[in-house]
Amino acid sequence: MSTIKLTYFDMDGGRAETTRIALSIAGIEFEDHRITFEEFGGLKSTFPLSSVPIIEIDGHTYTQSNAMSRYFGKKAGLYPEDAWQGFLCDEAMYIIDDVSNALGKTMGLTGDELKTAREKFVSGILTTALKLLSNRLKAAGGEYFAANQLTIADLVISGFLKVIGRGMFDHVHTDIVEKSAPLLVKHMERVSKDPRVASYYQKRSQ
Amino acid sequence: MSTIKLTYFDMDGGRAETTRIALSIAGIEFEDHRITFEEFGGLKSTFPLSSVPIIEIDGHTYTQSNAMSRYFGKKAGLYPEDAWQGFLCDEAMYIIDDVSNALGKTMGLTGDELKTAREKFVSGILTTALKLLSNRLKAAGGEYFAANQLTIADLVISGFLKVIGRGMFDHVHTDIVEKSAPLLVKHMERVSKDPRVASYYQKRSQ
Repeated sequence: MSTIKLTYFDMDGGRAETTRIALSIAGIEFEDHRITFEEFGGLKSTFPLSSVPIIEIDGHTYTQSNAMSRYFGKKAGLYPEDAWQGFLCDEAMYIIDDVSNALGKTMGLTGDELKTAREKFVSGILTTALKLLSNRLKAAGGEYFAANQLTIADLVISGFLKVIGRGMFDHVHTDIVEKSAPLLVKHMERVSKDPRVASYYQKRSQ
Repeated sequence: MSTIKLTYFDMDGGRAETTRIALSIAGIEFEDHRITFEEFGGLKSTFPLSSVPIIEIDGHTYTQSNAMSRYFGKKAGLYPEDAWQGFLCDEAMYIIDDVSNALGKTMGLTGDELKTAREKFVSGILTTALKLLSNRLKAAGGEYFAANQLTIADLVISGFLKVIGRGMFDHVHTDIVEKSAPLLVKHMERVSKDPRVASYYQKRSQ
């Protein structure tokens, strides 16, 4: 048995969430090390790429949330065995990376500059990606993004859109997903009702 | 047999290169559609995310270069079967994404602003990533990034560093890889001497 410690911010969402859920569904014990933004400032320079999440496995530190998600997703039965279904899963995950990177570029801006950048983000890549993902979902059968089953793509996408819908990003209206891609709202509900996902959050709340 | 058309810029490098090589090694026929930057301007709005590469498979258009690389990499025997080796392959690829995104943020800047941003890029994420990748290569046995064999991680990394070394990015000195991570220069040579890779470029030059 490996000793596993996952370090990320203290939020139910963001880049470590899929890995946490996958670890939990795989039944793999791990330390869910949650740090504050203040603690992150002090620890940043000790992380390999000055960023989180990081995962320590038997004392070795690794980076890259989606590599972690894919690895533990395989352990949890949340990654397609079939190569083409794997492609559909991967493509959907990378589309979220594109959106997330574009959102990242607006961080740190203020005032009118922030407003302009965020409005461009919403009307541009966010809306485009929501519509593309909605079409991908439809083409894959309407319920899941790949292999007609819950995969890490579903967790990554619903997790990201849940955060978008929380209203924590100025000028990104909370109803953007409902307006541009109502199928993805239904998808979010489907994912959160999955017994394995629901059980993870139930344990979290205890 | 599927009809496959890969659209990207007319350069031997960049985000489509690993997919091109993987397709070639897998022996899969495809149309290597290369466009100029001018043509891209006119076509941009017709691409799903206004970006390239895109791949059309039997008339359906897909995005995300690394999803393509992983899919055709599997077909070509360039992706590890083992989940942990797959993690090492994925982590290395995502590290390059981080670097590439950071470089992307400096595009469009000019003058002193460009100089400052590029110097920060070089002394920051680029140097850090080169050293991390160098350590990963050592830990994996020194020759390849995963599974002791050529994988798409090797192609992605050597391809990216080859472009970095071409001197096409102002303020990014061509000797940065040699200075920060000489092992990665040796790795680049190893990859380019791989008979399958060499054969791809030999066919290209005919």
